[in-house]
Amino acid sequence: MYSFSNRISALQPSAIREILKATSQPGMIPFAAGNPAPEAFPTQAVREISARLLAERPVDVLQYGVTEGYGPLRERVKAYMKDGFACGGPDDDLIVTSGAQQVVDLAAKVLCNEGDAVIAETPSFIGSLNTFRSYGLRLRGMPMQADGPDVAALERLLREEKNVRLIYVIPNYQNPAGTLMSLEKRREIYALARRFGVMILEDNPYGDLRYEGEALPSIKSMDTDGLVIYAGSFSKILAPGIRVGFALAPQPVIAKMTVGKQASDVHTPMFSQLLVDEWMANYDVAGHIKTIRAIYRRKCAVMCEGLAKAGEGRGLSFVRPRGGIFLWCALPAEIDMLEFTQTAAVNRVAVVPGAAFLVEPGERVNAVRLNFSTPTDAQLEEGLAILAEVMKKW
Amino acid sequence: MYSFSNRISALQPSAIREILKATSQPGMIPFAAGNPAPEAFPTQAVREISARLLAERPVDVLQYGVTEGYGPLRERVKAYMKDGFACGGPDDDLIVTSGAQQVVDLAAKVLCNEGDAVIAETPSFIGSLNTFRSYGLRLRGMPMQADGPDVAALERLLREEKNVRLIYVIPNYQNPAGTLMSLEKRREIYALARRFGVMILEDNPYGDLRYEGEALPSIKSMDTDGLVIYAGSFSKILAPGIRVGFALAPQPVIAKMTVGKQASDVHTPMFSQLLVDEWMANYDVAGHIKTIRAIYRRKCAVMCEGLAKAGEGRGLSFVRPRGGIFLWCALPAEIDMLEFTQTAAVNRVAVVPGAAFLVEPGERVNAVRLNFSTPTDAQLEEGLAILAEVMKKW
Repeated sequence: MYSFSNRISALQPSAIREILKATSQPGMIPFAAGNPAPEAFPTQAVREISARLLAERPVDVLQYGVTEGYGPLRERVKAYMKDGFACGGPDDDLIVTSGAQQVVDLAAKVLCNEGDAVIAETPSFIGSLNTFRSYGLRLRGMPMQADGPDVAALERLLREEKNVRLIYVIPNYQNPAGTLMSLEKRREIYALARRFGVMILEDNPYGDLRYEGEALPSIKSMDTDGLVIYAGSFSKILAPGIRVGFALAPQPVIAKMTVGKQASDVHTPMFSQLLVDEWMANYDVAGHIKTIRAIYRRKCAVMCEGLAKAGEGRGLSFVRPRGGIFLWCALPAEIDMLEFTQTAAVNRVAVVPGAAFLVEPGERVNAVRLNFSTPTDAQLEEGLAILAEVMKKW
Repeated sequence: MYSFSNRISALQPSAIREILKATSQPGMIPFAAGNPAPEAFPTQAVREISARLLAERPVDVLQYGVTEGYGPLRERVKAYMKDGFACGGPDDDLIVTSGAQQVVDLAAKVLCNEGDAVIAETPSFIGSLNTFRSYGLRLRGMPMQADGPDVAALERLLREEKNVRLIYVIPNYQNPAGTLMSLEKRREIYALARRFGVMILEDNPYGDLRYEGEALPSIKSMDTDGLVIYAGSFSKILAPGIRVGFALAPQPVIAKMTVGKQASDVHTPMFSQLLVDEWMANYDVAGHIKTIRAIYRRKCAVMCEGLAKAGEGRGLSFVRPRGGIFLWCALPAEIDMLEFTQTAAVNRVAVVPGAAFLVEPGERVNAVRLNFSTPTDAQLEEGLAILAEVMKKW
C-alpha cells in the first residue's frame, strides 16, 4: 500500500540493525551505546539555571526564536572557539543546531545533490553515514590506520571520483575506531582538500575528552581558504538530551544552512539554547570538563585492563584509547563477529559489530566496538567476565 | 567558490523574502509574525514542572532519548487524540517531532522523490511550501474558497498529475486564509484521496483556537483506509519555543519517519518532551485552552473592528476569522500589495504580502496577511491607525 522514497528505502533494516535493536533492550549491560555517564552531568548547575531562567525570563524560554540560533549564544560560542581553539575567522559564521547530527544533515542538504560523492573514514560514525545515505550520496571510504585515515587512499579517491562534495572526518578519538588523527595527517588532508577544491566536514564531539597527551589543532584552525565546516556538540560535555550542537563555517554556507534548517525544524528549542548560554557564561566549564575527563579516564582504564584480562591468550587486539568513549577491538579470525555479538547479546552484553560502521558495501571487518562511558564499574566487571565466557565458544 | 545543492538553490531569497526580513526588524508593530501572545503561556505550570523534573529526574532530562519520542508522552498523546478527537486506530502509530514543521519535513522525506507532485491549498503556509520545495517537489495549488479549497480543482489536478504523493491541507483556520474547511469538503477530499490512492497530510496547529461555532471532525477521524498523516503541535496551546509536535499516521509511515528523524536530529529534546507529558498529566489543559481562546477571541475582535474602521470606504475585503491567529485582507485593485507592504514597513507596521503564500509561480493575488495574536492592544490600535494613513497614498 505505501510506497516510500528512494532515500528512505536506502536505510532499510539490515541484519546489523536488527542486532543493534536487540542490544538496546532493557536489562542489557550497555557496551553498545554512546551515552554519557549520569554522574558526568552538571545537574546542580542545570537546576539553578533552569530556575533562574523561568523566574526571570520565561517568555524568552517559551517564545519562538530565530533559525540561526539565540544571538548571545552564537557570539559566545564563536568567541569560545576563537579564543580556545583558534577556530573561525572574519569570513566564518555560526549556526546553533539541534545536536551535531543536524550539522551533518544540513551540510549534506545544502552542498550535495543525489549521486554526489562523500569520502569518509572507514569505519565511521553510523549516524553520519546514514544521513549521507538518506540524501542518496555515494559513500567512499578511506581505511583507518593507527594515526588516522589512509591519506594516500584519500588522494586516490579524489582523483578517481567525480563530484566529491565533502571529506568527512572525526579527528579526535574517532567513533568507532578510537583513533587520534596525527597533526601531519590533519595538514595533509587540508592540503588535499585545498588542491581538489573539496570541503571538509570536521566532526568533533569527543575532542574535550582527552585523557593523555596534548591537544592537537583542529583542521578548522588551519582553514585559511574557507574550506572547513566544523561540527561542535554540547552532548558529551554538558548533556545529549538537550540536543545542542553548532556549525562554524564560511558565512555563505551558514546562510544556506539557515535556510535549510528553517525548513527542517524552524529553530533549536530555546530552553536548550539559553541553558547552554547561561552555563558557559556563569559556570566553570573548564573545571567541569576536567571532572568528566577524570571519570572517563578511569572507566577507560577499567575497561582496558578488564578486556586485556578477559581476552588473555585469545588473540584480541585493541589500542588503549587516549580519549573519547569508544574502544575498537579486533577479533581473531576464528571468532566470528556476528556470532560473537549475538551470543554476547543472548548473555545480556550489548556490543556493536564493527561491520555496522563500514562505509562501502564490499568491505569486511572482524571487530567489535565497545563503549566505556555508559556502564557502571560493576557492569564493566560483569560484562567483561561474560565476554570472556562467550569467547570460550571458540 | 561555493556550489550549493539544487534543493537549497530553489529557496533563493526573493523580493518577498526581503520584505519579510525587513518586517522582522525590532521596533516594528508585529502584524506579520505568528507568535503566541506572551500572556497565553502557562508560565507558572512550566516553572513548577521544570523544578520538579530537575529535582526528581534530572538524568531523564539530560540523557539521550529514543528517536520515536518519550514513551509515556507518545501513549498520552495517542489517548488524547483518540478520546478527544476520534483520531487514530489500531493500525496507527505516533512519533514526537521537533515541532509540526518536522512532520512536514519527515512526510516529504519518506514519501516523496525529487520531481514528485504535492497538491496544496493556495495560498498556504510558506514554511510547509518551502519544505516541499527543499525536496525538489512540484507544487500544485487548489485555490482557496470561503469554505476551504476548490475540490473540483483538486480532482482535476489528481487526474492531470502523475506521481502526486501528498495532498497538504490545513482544515482549521488556515494559514494564511483564516478559512475553516466545511465538513462536506473534508469528506470530499478524503474520498478523492481514497479514489486516487494519494495520502493526505492534515496540518492542525490552530484547531484548538476556536472562537465560535462547533468543532468539525478532522479528516484523520475519517481515516478508515490508512491514508492520513495528522500533524499536531503544542506550539499554539503550550509554547512554540519548546518545539514539540507529533505525527499520527499509519504504523509503516511512522516507522519510516523514525528512520528519517534519526538521521536528522536523533530525537526531540527531553526537557521539551517531559514538560509536555507532565503538563498533560497534571494540569488543566482544557481550562488553559479556554483561557487562551478568550485572549485571542478578544484580540481578533479588536483587529476586525479596527480594520473595518481603518478601511472604511476603501474597498478592503476580509472575512472575520472564526478561529486561529490570522486574518486575510484582500486589497482593492488600486492599492498595490507590494507597495502597500513596503510603505507599511517604512512606517513601522509589519504585514506579509499575500504573494508569499502562493503555491505556483504564475499565480497572482492582491492581499495581505495580518496576525492578531502577537500585537498588544496598544499595538493593534496604533498599527491599524498607521495602515489607514498608508492607504491614503492611493
